[in-house]
Amino acid sequence: MIKVNLPIYLASKSPRRRKLLKQINLNFKSFTVDMEEKIKRGEKPSVSVKRLSKEKLEIARHKVKHGIIITADTIVVLNRKVIGKPKDKKEARRFLKKLSGKVHTVYTGFSIYNSENKMLLTDYEKTFVEFRELTAKEIDDYIKSGNPMDKAGAYGIQDDFGAVFINKINGCYYNVVGLPLTKVYQTLMKII
Amino acid sequence: MIKVNLPIYLASKSPRRRKLLKQINLNFKSFTVDMEEKIKRGEKPSVSVKRLSKEKLEIARHKVKHGIIITADTIVVLNRKVIGKPKDKKEARRFLKKLSGKVHTVYTGFSIYNSENKMLLTDYEKTFVEFRELTAKEIDDYIKSGNPMDKAGAYGIQDDFGAVFINKINGCYYNVVGLPLTKVYQTLMKII
Repeated sequence: MIKVNLPIYLASKSPRRRKLLKQINLNFKSFTVDMEEKIKRGEKPSVSVKRLSKEKLEIARHKVKHGIIITADTIVVLNRKVIGKPKDKKEARRFLKKLSGKVHTVYTGFSIYNSENKMLLTDYEKTFVEFRELTAKEIDDYIKSGNPMDKAGAYGIQDDFGAVFINKINGCYYNVVGLPLTKVYQTLMKII
Repeated sequence: MIKVNLPIYLASKSPRRRKLLKQINLNFKSFTVDMEEKIKRGEKPSVSVKRLSKEKLEIARHKVKHGIIITADTIVVLNRKVIGKPKDKKEARRFLKKLSGKVHTVYTGFSIYNSENKMLLTDYEKTFVEFRELTAKEIDDYIKSGNPMDKAGAYGIQDDFGAVFINKINGCYYNVVGLPLTKVYQTLMKII
């Protein structure tokens, strides 16, 4: 689908992002980048996710000398407040109660770098997500499944429960999973 | 997730629908229903998909005496015209050219029947899908993959190429795949 003569690296620990790039038949290797993801007070979400993906890329560049590197950062925003990954089950419950019956926004920023032509492109995507009203039992059952724990906003739209919690979205679906595939594909086309 | 004491049957030949019901951990068996899916001239799309899912249910009821039966029908509508499953590669190319750069609507109607309490519920969901401008090469490569052939509108949003053809959707994502999971889940809760 995308023919590239350079090795491609996904610098992300998210298994969802690996699965998404496999879906579009991309040949790549992946490694994790450890970095504290700090959101600055007053910074616009679109600016935060682009900045964080760029900071990840700077770290990843020390590990890869030759090839294309992809990094990304996803945040969930409700009423102008960022909802991160839950620290524990109690926080996951609190997050899901907040999202219940409301519309929130998912932002993913991504950066792609080509070591050959030294091009670096950064972009982002945002998607509105409408949760239906959840019952306490549905939230408890979902937390018991363990799925909310490693995810921004404490849910995955591609999960068993996540799939039936959402009435509708407005924007790119894959952005909510963790990587806006159409935009990433178009950006890759520009950079190779 | 959903605890039902009755056997559940999905009467559909779509492998996507089977995968979607598995995603929400539903235990079910599936079988196919053969029926000519005729769209009546002047009939509203929401009425067509509900009617077709009910007609499929009537046929399926002859095969299952005891249990819950789920049927569904999906159509793609562009400028008030229904775009069905392509007959051949040439038609698939024509369909994809039509969808390129435009917004179309995906309708899925579904019916659920419980043989115990004799309840029959029918509902539908609609989702707007915006395609970006596709190149002739992208359309050709997608057709070569074989994926467009058995799908309404000649694409699958969950495919490799399908995923990068779409800028955004407005509505339920799973409805575009073939079954609106949130609404089906809620309807199952009402009927059991």
